[in-house]
Amino acid sequence: MKSRMIAAATAAALSLGFAASAVAQVKPDVLVKQRQSAMVLIGKYFGPTAGMASGKIPYNAQIVARNAGYLNALAPMAWDGFDASTQGEKSRALPAVWSEAAKWDQARDAFLAAAGDLAKAAQGGDEGAIKNAVGAVGKTCGGCHDNFRSK
Amino acid sequence: MKSRMIAAATAAALSLGFAASAVAQVKPDVLVKQRQSAMVLIGKYFGPTAGMASGKIPYNAQIVARNAGYLNALAPMAWDGFDASTQGEKSRALPAVWSEAAKWDQARDAFLAAAGDLAKAAQGGDEGAIKNAVGAVGKTCGGCHDNFRSK
Repeated sequence: MKSRMIAAATAAALSLGFAASAVAQVKPDVLVKQRQSAMVLIGKYFGPTAGMASGKIPYNAQIVARNAGYLNALAPMAWDGFDASTQGEKSRALPAVWSEAAKWDQARDAFLAAAGDLAKAAQGGDEGAIKNAVGAVGKTCGGCHDNFRSK
Repeated sequence: MKSRMIAAATAAALSLGFAASAVAQVKPDVLVKQRQSAMVLIGKYFGPTAGMASGKIPYNAQIVARNAGYLNALAPMAWDGFDASTQGEKSRALPAVWSEAAKWDQARDAFLAAAGDLAKAAQGGDEGAIKNAVGAVGKTCGGCHDNFRSK
């Protein structure tokens, strides 16, 4: 619950221009590169974590705990890069990112909340709870990619 | 002092193969992309922070505090990407990364420690201390780039 509140606060800060003011002078191609970099790192740490949670890779509690913390830190870093100025840049972002803003915000918030829940579960150390939380994060990744990223 | 201990522990974990075991099957070009992504994000958050600390951008304590936390979270994320397998990949990394390993480790540890010190200063909220800590981080960026990155 607390992580959902933190996610909501983060989203509120983002939508209130806390971050927007800091990106005002950043060029669109740089914003795209930065948001893609955040996604690359989220993939770097989520990939093995999902593999361990699903049994495809031997489970290593130490790596899962580290990755959960990294993912929660990375979770808020991509979103200010989806500035309206980037709509003409080459990327896999679909126009729906801007035309369906409420749905987009909801998808982002779901990911932020799930990443927070995973970090909390990882601190708790219960392997079953951690695996469930990893699955929940994966669903929010897929849910957003399905609607807002080209195949 | 505590942040230096954490940095040392992080470095020890890295050098002991904690991270290396997780990257064993990752292809060299992916490792390069991942480490460059970490550097892009470090630049994203350090750039405005340095600008604010030096007076080139109006100082915003809220953004500096946020960025200091982000930088400390990002600080450990690039290093396992400098795997020996990546030496043939196109990048700005100089051969010295691998041929001068002790010096490289020292440069990395200095950055980790400085990022930790900045995060601590940002939590303290003293603007002078924060500005000094930002300057110290900048020195460790430059110190490493001068010796280990092509111009």
